Amino acid sequence: MRSLIDIVDFSVEELDELMKTACDISENPEKYSKKCVGKKLATLFFEPSTRTRLSFEAAMYELGGNVIGFSDAGNSSASKGESVADTAKVISCYADIIAMRHPKAGAPYVAAENATIPVINAGDGDHCHPTQTLADLLTIYREKGRLSNLTVGFCGDLKYGRTVHSLIAALSRYEGVRIVLISPDELKIPEFVKHDILDKNQMTYIEKNCLEQEIPNLDILYMTRVQRERFDDLDEYEKLKNSYILNTQKMSLAKPDMCVLHPLPRVNEINVSVDNDPRACYFKQVQNGKYMRMALILKLLEDEKREIKHTHKNDVVINEIYCTNPRCITSCEQELEHKYKLVDKQNGIYSCVYCEKTAKMKEEN
Amino acid sequence: MRSLIDIVDFSVEELDELMKTACDISENPEKYSKKCVGKKLATLFFEPSTRTRLSFEAAMYELGGNVIGFSDAGNSSASKGESVADTAKVISCYADIIAMRHPKAGAPYVAAENATIPVINAGDGDHCHPTQTLADLLTIYREKGRLSNLTVGFCGDLKYGRTVHSLIAALSRYEGVRIVLISPDELKIPEFVKHDILDKNQMTYIEKNCLEQEIPNLDILYMTRVQRERFDDLDEYEKLKNSYILNTQKMSLAKPDMCVLHPLPRVNEINVSVDNDPRACYFKQVQNGKYMRMALILKLLEDEKREIKHTHKNDVVINEIYCTNPRCITSCEQELEHKYKLVDKQNGIYSCVYCEKTAKMKEEN
Amino acid sequence: MRSLIDIVDFSVEELDELMKTACDISENPEKYSKKCVGKKLATLFFEPSTRTRLSFEAAMYELGGNVIGFSDAGNSSASKGESVADTAKVISCYADIIAMRHPKAGAPYVAAENATIPVINAGDGDHCHPTQTLADLLTIYREKGRLSNLTVGFCGDLKYGRTVHSLIAALSRYEGVRIVLISPDELKIPEFVKHDILDKNQMTYIEKNCLEQEIPNLDILYMTRVQRERFDDLDEYEKLKNSYILNTQKMSLAKPDMCVLHPLPRVNEINVSVDNDPRACYFKQVQNGKYMRMALILKLLEDEKREIKHTHKNDVVINEIYCTNPRCITSCEQELEHKYKLVDKQNGIYSCVYCEKTAKMKEEN
Repeated sequence: MRSLIDIVDFSVEELDELMKTACDISENPEKYSKKCVGKKLATLFFEPSTRTRLSFEAAMYELGGNVIGFSDAGNSSASKGESVADTAKVISCYADIIAMRHPKAGAPYVAAENATIPVINAGDGDHCHPTQTLADLLTIYREKGRLSNLTVGFCGDLKYGRTVHSLIAALSRYEGVRIVLISPDELKIPEFVKHDILDKNQMTYIEKNCLEQEIPNLDILYMTRVQRERFDDLDEYEKLKNSYILNTQKMSLAKPDMCVLHPLPRVNEINVSVDNDPRACYFKQVQNGKYMRMALILKLLEDEKREIKHTHKNDVVINEIYCTNPRCITSCEQELEHKYKLVDKQNGIYSCVYCEKTAKMKEEN
Repeated sequence: MRSLIDIVDFSVEELDELMKTACDISENPEKYSKKCVGKKLATLFFEPSTRTRLSFEAAMYELGGNVIGFSDAGNSSASKGESVADTAKVISCYADIIAMRHPKAGAPYVAAENATIPVINAGDGDHCHPTQTLADLLTIYREKGRLSNLTVGFCGDLKYGRTVHSLIAALSRYEGVRIVLISPDELKIPEFVKHDILDKNQMTYIEKNCLEQEIPNLDILYMTRVQRERFDDLDEYEKLKNSYILNTQKMSLAKPDMCVLHPLPRVNEINVSVDNDPRACYFKQVQNGKYMRMALILKLLEDEKREIKHTHKNDVVINEIYCTNPRCITSCEQELEHKYKLVDKQNGIYSCVYCEKTAKMKEEN
Repeated sequence: MRSLIDIVDFSVEELDELMKTACDISENPEKYSKKCVGKKLATLFFEPSTRTRLSFEAAMYELGGNVIGFSDAGNSSASKGESVADTAKVISCYADIIAMRHPKAGAPYVAAENATIPVINAGDGDHCHPTQTLADLLTIYREKGRLSNLTVGFCGDLKYGRTVHSLIAALSRYEGVRIVLISPDELKIPEFVKHDILDKNQMTYIEKNCLEQEIPNLDILYMTRVQRERFDDLDEYEKLKNSYILNTQKMSLAKPDMCVLHPLPRVNEINVSVDNDPRACYFKQVQNGKYMRMALILKLLEDEKREIKHTHKNDVVINEIYCTNPRCITSCEQELEHKYKLVDKQNGIYSCVYCEKTAKMKEEN
């Protein structure tokens, strides 16, 4: 059985295969309209996310399947104290595949470990959101014809934006990708992304403050919101905010074939007047997200028949290192084993299998 | 593309066609059971309304289609600050037709302007609720065989009852309709309904206080609730309330073929003992509402193919008059253009395209 | 028309028939996958219960039908003050069968009295939950090959656990069932269960405090949670709690073919390490619950055609005895008739048709 928890669970070849299927779906929807007849998707949304949930539901219906689920923890058994593991076991009796959204990192991983059906991570806290990255990749691929040899700018909040981190991780596996990181100093890309992704994969990248200056060089501009709440100094925010808002004036400085992406919802970080620019691809991205989710559901239900092994179980130590990340699923589920995986043999560094927080084994062990 | 925002968006001929289709559906449901296979309705309910939502969902399933959506703003992207316009654009990627309920007047209008699929107004604040009016019209038509030459009584809260205003507007286009308005003084029909609908269309109407006195003359009695909260003087409420409650005693004064309608939910304004009277048509109205919604979904998906133009765009001034109605969608969506349409050339009166609040252009313009 | 409000609404023969159908469904799901095409189940959940709701929804989809409904009173018309009776009448226009969950005892009974379609009680407060009992019965039947001649232990909270009371009532109709009641003194089985079920049906039963001592004798062990909130004396709770937690050590004392059941959700009353024991049947119970709900939906839609009479209407007095149970639906719906049914002619004892609270007719009558 196979699940998708983190975008790097899939090889580049698998991503290529998914994108090929998604393109075929968009051209021949009829061909796929009965592929999942008699199958059920369970959308287990422990926190609301309308766009992602409806994208999954639309995807399943366009494959001919049905949907059960909940859109909010208040309506779920979680409010009665049931563990994610038990929920996964129960839902395995009702559905054929799960899409799970959860406020805590690692919850979909726990579900995948316990379910007897495939699990798709539909967003786990600030950790991963791999199906958004699938939408991003397909959009770049369809607009530019390739994922390699591109200059990709990320603009706005690069500190907290998990979609930014995931897309950089995904792009790290293609050749000739140059990353331009544009943000206020308060919201620069975190060190762990630099170290674990950018440097580790020897990617070319630069960090800048000014969108206006960098936009002429970009093939892709990935916008995110600069939120007022992130600033200690509100004067600083007021001074900065307009420079991170995309408008027609800034678009006039960009290449004629640059693509603008945004994970949505958008508040005011892209001016509505940009929507009519043919380079604005964020609503195409929504459409592509649906096609990729269709391709993904098909793939996981196919792989299930092939009985591929779950890949997360090597070199794992159990209850030897305890995760202290308050946003990790281990922080709220008492009975869960704390599992760490050896990620850097040379330096003895382990990483929590749920939330990827790293730690060293204690000396006395 | 075509949407239904206000009942008067449809011509009398179109309403007749809808009623004809609805009758055929009720007689030959099988014939329609696969009309929408592969289609999806999105029910976007920014405030809860179980009856209306389930009616739409039942309608779509009986046409062979599927349903996605949300039942409450808390579960929607609105809580993340997304505009109605963006929601409409995103949902256009997921569904084939939208039914939208929203607390603010004009929200479905904004959706229709931005969606690439038809939008049905499923109730926008105290503004319009055209599919309720469709249910009302079909019920009158099926029970009486006609919509003209009828004496129609409206009883109860005629001030705040949007279903009353909409039905009067719809009936204004048929011949020989006499309107009897029965309410306490506190809850009389508003001036704008008198001026814009009753007088403008030269309808015959009278205003009365006593249901008992008027009921013998009625062909149709449309009941609504007299809510305690509407009264400043609670003694006045206590004195009045029973005279607006329909019971078997009052029914005994009515014609043997009078029909009782009610938009539901009913609290105590119609006594449960009336339910068994064959003249009580309010549960038939529920059934008819489903058939009309089926006919409407079919019509809009058909019209879509014919590429009929949206009719709301003539004589509109943009950002010249600003709407100050706190119940208008412009009150909560900052980026929305304020649009006014010239409705009375002689007097220079404009009407907000979202909420229909009227205004004059300022002198200096 | 036929509904399922209380497990004893069905005869032993009918239960046997249901279990036979459920077994056939589990072996030949394809045979049933189109039985309900064009039919709709309405899941009216006035309080959340994800597991039960999703079980019903999965059941209906596996029969080829569709589902409409709500998962929570906040999203329902109840918040606008609509009566259960009116809701039932309205939903009868939209769906073919209802599954209703409600916090008040008797609400599904009221729905069944007013709907024109079958109603299934999906849990009414602390009163009944017959489809859970159907899941329990099928699990015992499939695991042991019979429902008679079994020693069945119930452990934990026997005072408030309605699933315990219902299963004992169901088992009372089979021969040679011995009941072992294992609980702290605070949570012993209530007198009315002893009197009305155990004694009345001359069942063999014993009451004990120690799970460890009794487990070796059991064919079936039905676990429930001992909740901290039930104890006045928390020291007492702390002292006791571990003795009612099932773990591998206690399992080692049990028969090799004992079955462990639990209605779920489980918090900590069964240790996760027991899950891998082949005698742990609580996830099988979930699967069986879905099959029984499928069989039940089929049966009720079949019975509907046969126009079987509702059986609840004999010997009923109306508005002569008033129910004072605050958990009864009569406590919150003002217009509802208070109905009592004569259950013990000799002693003149009546029972509320909604919540089964017993009372005598007042002397002056």
